[in-house]
Amino acid sequence: MEEKNMNTSLTEGRNEVIEAFRSGKTVERVYILDGAHDGKLDTIRREAKKAGVRTDYVDRRRLDELSPTGNHQGVIAKTAACKYAEVSDILQNAEDKGEDPFIIFLDGIEDPHNLGAVIRTADLCGAHGVVIPKDRAAGLTAAVARVSAGAINYVPVAKVTNLSRTMEELKKKGLWFAGADMDGELMYKCDLRGPMGLVIGAEGAGLSRLVKEKCDHVVRIPSKGHIDSLNASVAAGVLAYEIVRQRTD
Amino acid sequence: MEEKNMNTSLTEGRNEVIEAFRSGKTVERVYILDGAHDGKLDTIRREAKKAGVRTDYVDRRRLDELSPTGNHQGVIAKTAACKYAEVSDILQNAEDKGEDPFIIFLDGIEDPHNLGAVIRTADLCGAHGVVIPKDRAAGLTAAVARVSAGAINYVPVAKVTNLSRTMEELKKKGLWFAGADMDGELMYKCDLRGPMGLVIGAEGAGLSRLVKEKCDHVVRIPSKGHIDSLNASVAAGVLAYEIVRQRTD
Repeated sequence: MEEKNMNTSLTEGRNEVIEAFRSGKTVERVYILDGAHDGKLDTIRREAKKAGVRTDYVDRRRLDELSPTGNHQGVIAKTAACKYAEVSDILQNAEDKGEDPFIIFLDGIEDPHNLGAVIRTADLCGAHGVVIPKDRAAGLTAAVARVSAGAINYVPVAKVTNLSRTMEELKKKGLWFAGADMDGELMYKCDLRGPMGLVIGAEGAGLSRLVKEKCDHVVRIPSKGHIDSLNASVAAGVLAYEIVRQRTD
Repeated sequence: MEEKNMNTSLTEGRNEVIEAFRSGKTVERVYILDGAHDGKLDTIRREAKKAGVRTDYVDRRRLDELSPTGNHQGVIAKTAACKYAEVSDILQNAEDKGEDPFIIFLDGIEDPHNLGAVIRTADLCGAHGVVIPKDRAAGLTAAVARVSAGAINYVPVAKVTNLSRTMEELKKKGLWFAGADMDGELMYKCDLRGPMGLVIGAEGAGLSRLVKEKCDHVVRIPSKGHIDSLNASVAAGVLAYEIVRQRTD
């Protein structure tokens, strides 16, 4: 199993730190702004005490120094680093739930906001995991963890060397792939039920040629607009929920 | 009509500058990285020449200094500032198209990524405009313009003093309001056709009480997840496209 290079990672923000505790993540230490008080910080103090985690009260300058994104809201937790999952873990996740696999593939998303938002979507729409390529793509950084609003603790994310090769392997296991592209078929007209990989291309560049060739469907979100495409995480959300709708029918 | 305090604004990034020209925006000057060459920069040079706009070739340091977000991709254009629209302009936009009004209301979205992504969604899904509150919310900054990928040039955005009062006025003109909330009715079961305002709450806090009370429907995106809610711009996209689907049926 592949891991990030660092052994610890920082989780910041009130909801994110609470989520880190509640999801059973290994929290090693908590830093709280000295003198700050509110309900959520009290919850964090209680959780830390319960888990036997040391809490340090520090001044704003120290928190700002520690903060990876500058948006700590008065609390930072040092946690065990997010580990990448294997693709097989994602398939196992689907099998454990007795569901057809539903996996979101990101073909070169570089913006951590988009990766974090997609992981959040994956949790809520019931996708079993997210697959990202090793190169030229955002990875599981502290910023991504923050944007994911805690979803990173629930959604397995696998990092693979070659996205189209992984798709080829999964097709042999019965998955169908739907790639998002403005020149595809209208999403309502594609049958998106069954074991499914949803592939979202990079901002601007879209799906790469090799990945697009591996797709069974190329699907289009209806557009009445002037610009080319939705934000990548919004496109992923709209298509993921079209899959949810078709599976619910 | 309310305007931003500044008279000019900077548009940066290749696609954004091309879009500024193509949408007929008033470009006052273009700054291009000296020695940089590619298809998109050539397009920008041609557009600038055609429009009689002066192009300055500058070094990276100068571009970095000018850049509001640090992500200029070798080109920055000085453009007339984005003007806010009036709510009446948005209604007129719908009337001009012979369509029932479809307006996205943002109840205190503070993240410029989310505001930019929602404006982009509004363009593509055929919404007639976006309404934001004056206080405690992101406004039309250069960062929002960049994230909107040019959509800001097509989508009227109105800034109002009191969101719930504006909703009240629009209800008198026949609009129905659907607010997004996890305790609402499943979105597939709500009739979202006809003149419609879609209301998205702030990250974390959700819909404010007054705004929620004004909503005719409170709608829920189905969730199978562990965390509370989708990213605000993703939620806006999923619900906007549910409205599109219901209107298309």
